[in-house]
Amino acid sequence: MKALEDKIRNEGIILPGDILKVGSFLNQQVDTELLKLMAEETKRLYSGEKITKVLTIEASGLPFAAAVGMELRVPMVFAKKEKTANVSGDLVTAKVDSYTHNNTSIIYITKSYINENDRVLIVDDFLAKGNALLGLISLVKQCGATVVGCAIEIEKVYQGGGQIVRDMGYRVESLASITYMDDKQIKFK
Amino acid sequence: MKALEDKIRNEGIILPGDILKVGSFLNQQVDTELLKLMAEETKRLYSGEKITKVLTIEASGLPFAAAVGMELRVPMVFAKKEKTANVSGDLVTAKVDSYTHNNTSIIYITKSYINENDRVLIVDDFLAKGNALLGLISLVKQCGATVVGCAIEIEKVYQGGGQIVRDMGYRVESLASITYMDDKQIKFK
Repeated sequence: MKALEDKIRNEGIILPGDILKVGSFLNQQVDTELLKLMAEETKRLYSGEKITKVLTIEASGLPFAAAVGMELRVPMVFAKKEKTANVSGDLVTAKVDSYTHNNTSIIYITKSYINENDRVLIVDDFLAKGNALLGLISLVKQCGATVVGCAIEIEKVYQGGGQIVRDMGYRVESLASITYMDDKQIKFK
Repeated sequence: MKALEDKIRNEGIILPGDILKVGSFLNQQVDTELLKLMAEETKRLYSGEKITKVLTIEASGLPFAAAVGMELRVPMVFAKKEKTANVSGDLVTAKVDSYTHNNTSIIYITKSYINENDRVLIVDDFLAKGNALLGLISLVKQCGATVVGCAIEIEKVYQGGGQIVRDMGYRVESLASITYMDDKQIKFK
């Protein structure tokens, strides 16, 4: 999606450790006009599919998920994150290793918010090694629901997570797909 | 706002410790049709005001803030939360005591995202004792910007936070204002 790629080129900051900082338009500060365009594009990409719920994980995926949910006119569910396994109630859980934060979290949703009739679109801001996505897919399957596919704002293709999820048979649509980046340039697919 | 009050009456769950659980439509699961209506109502309430930025705090305020930002067509900024003061960079910070989580956090934003020309609408999902709102107001003032007012999804009026902020001279608009609740009934203003 050209508008997003242009923003990344113009305002993205690449930090040591392969971190792409997009705080001026995607998180911390959110360009809401771009957000609306991204939600519309996601709706277009999945226009042939019946979707009943949007699922994401707190916190930075929330604006995109809310926008996609409003665009598709379906409820949005977000998984919560705990540093410990100390969660209770009628929940489904999954373990997620974070590349950015160098830690492991338990993510969970209340089971009743997704049921076996739901057709779920999983959305997130970044896709790198795919750990968050695999955790979210696990939650959907534990609820007995169907994963329609995944919608990602920025995929770092070279980190391989997208390939893993696609090889499992899931559709993954990324609005910007970075094939290479260093402190001088960013290449998109 | 009647649609929100009806939802709270029908789906809200009151737990010991004066906790109102709205996980089925406001957080964890978000009713995106209601979210859009709440954003439109917020725009209407502040229609006489020039607003250049929307500010909230992660995580559960994010869907509402994103929706309001899209409705007003202005950027949305969200403060991040840390358990420690271990944050660096060109930031402004404030200390916030959480009633729900029984802890203290440092909240922060990157200073460059709000400047002295900005007219900021602060939004959040809940207003109880007002601590989060006071922290966000402090961030705006440290950036030299103007607080236009606050927009809240659910205010627990009897906890006094709204009064404190209004007594400081700030406009606070709450879409549902709870004056009393116990395990049998909820009263709205």
